[in-house]
Amino acid sequence: MNAEKRNFGRIALFGIGLIGSSLARIIRRDGLADHIAVAARTQASLDTAASLGLADLTSLDAAAAVQDADIIVICTPLSTYAPIIESIAPALKPGAIVTDVGSVKGSALRDLAPHIPDGVHLVPAHPVAGTEHSGPESGFPELFDGRWCILTPAPGTDEKAVETVADLWRACGSTIEMMEAEHHDQVMAMTSHIPHLIAYTIVGTATDLEQTLRNEVIKFSAGGFRDFTRIAASDPSMWRDVFICNQDAVLEMLQRFNEDLTALQRAIRWGEADTLYELFDRTREIRRGVIDAKQA
Amino acid sequence: MNAEKRNFGRIALFGIGLIGSSLARIIRRDGLADHIAVAARTQASLDTAASLGLADLTSLDAAAAVQDADIIVICTPLSTYAPIIESIAPALKPGAIVTDVGSVKGSALRDLAPHIPDGVHLVPAHPVAGTEHSGPESGFPELFDGRWCILTPAPGTDEKAVETVADLWRACGSTIEMMEAEHHDQVMAMTSHIPHLIAYTIVGTATDLEQTLRNEVIKFSAGGFRDFTRIAASDPSMWRDVFICNQDAVLEMLQRFNEDLTALQRAIRWGEADTLYELFDRTREIRRGVIDAKQA
Repeated sequence: MNAEKRNFGRIALFGIGLIGSSLARIIRRDGLADHIAVAARTQASLDTAASLGLADLTSLDAAAAVQDADIIVICTPLSTYAPIIESIAPALKPGAIVTDVGSVKGSALRDLAPHIPDGVHLVPAHPVAGTEHSGPESGFPELFDGRWCILTPAPGTDEKAVETVADLWRACGSTIEMMEAEHHDQVMAMTSHIPHLIAYTIVGTATDLEQTLRNEVIKFSAGGFRDFTRIAASDPSMWRDVFICNQDAVLEMLQRFNEDLTALQRAIRWGEADTLYELFDRTREIRRGVIDAKQA
Repeated sequence: MNAEKRNFGRIALFGIGLIGSSLARIIRRDGLADHIAVAARTQASLDTAASLGLADLTSLDAAAAVQDADIIVICTPLSTYAPIIESIAPALKPGAIVTDVGSVKGSALRDLAPHIPDGVHLVPAHPVAGTEHSGPESGFPELFDGRWCILTPAPGTDEKAVETVADLWRACGSTIEMMEAEHHDQVMAMTSHIPHLIAYTIVGTATDLEQTLRNEVIKFSAGGFRDFTRIAASDPSMWRDVFICNQDAVLEMLQRFNEDLTALQRAIRWGEADTLYELFDRTREIRRGVIDAKQA
């Protein structure tokens, strides 16, 4: 792992939420760039970015923000990728690198690649990090420390450009993993997207309970429910886009989950104690794997 | 809240796992009892309890353990309640209090009440606390600090006996809540049992993945899956019994959850972005409730 800090020239960030603002904080703190330009959809976000000292230039005009940028990092929800790249493509300078931080890589390639001009490089990335908080104020420079960052460049992508993006994330404290985009989306469907979907669902189910029962569910949430409410407090726009963009893999994994849940439901209905014990015992092994992999 | 420490006389504990051994540690540390007797199913558990200094007397013979006990606390899985109470009932002294720590209270009343001799009091209790670890070594005296303990005595239960059990849990740092057993089981189905069931299911689904994908799911588990593996590492015997004993409430809540998940699945399949956003936004309110209730 090459943790050497280098200067990445001029960096333009699209979106200044949890991920974008954490990245900006690190770039600022460690002097990783000569210039940070920030583009966002609302003036309020830009004002916050400016007041936090995270930007040398802020702009609602996407093309103006990428002027002369060496690296362009898209940190907005996945559904904005196509309009953003369309608007900035003509302003990109030769040799520039376009990257992103989105949780689905198949759709990132699909939406970005066709608009990348000749001589500009596309290196999609996914820092596997986050909290349930969103917005420019929620960022912090330790967010990526010791976390994975998965790069999914298409075959034939310029190696120097890939190495530059890898170096940027290494400078943020991440460990780099290379993966094929479709495979990335399968893995994330199971490790991240389905857990979030389930957490949103159960918290939604609780929301629909009669008032008295709902208040008690909140009061006694420490029994397990609490952890789900934290997960289900994540940014709604981001997650809406994740499920739309990773539809196939999510539906496939959800189908498997549903079958397993139905089997468990049946075991409970028929009082099949041994079936329940066997599953509950078997799942401990995965936990040991997580602990051994130092991800606990 | 009455935090005054009193002496509870002679206490007998059945089972010396996470809850039983945590309770024993507090009783020892704060001198809450003159004598602690520990009964368990295996000599190994008794030896551990003895070596940890948690027992004045250990015994595989249930009746011997309750000899002269003022308070008997059942800390074993729910399926053991009926055989335990049957074996100790003849040895209980007049005025003794039988209590438990089980997660389902309807079945606790059903299994214990018919065997309680005249002059002996039954005060079921549920300390809403735990970790994913089990066994005598996993206990610690801070486990119940600031956590709820729910008492579900049947109507007409001796008030002094109820107050004694409440005092014992207050002495352990808990806050007391009184509830009707059936209602308790409904609330816990949603706050604890369904979250555990879902966590077990998804970790089971991951366990069945092809080897390569499973290894990557473990490697990248920090995206959300990790939290589910922790929940799904809880004691399998305990949870098997919870689902069998709280069958009705669990199946009812599971049905609601299933309907909601199916609706969400349909929204993903048809790309209904607005439906997804609306749900993901709505669930944030419950999180705010959890934070306001200081349960976060």
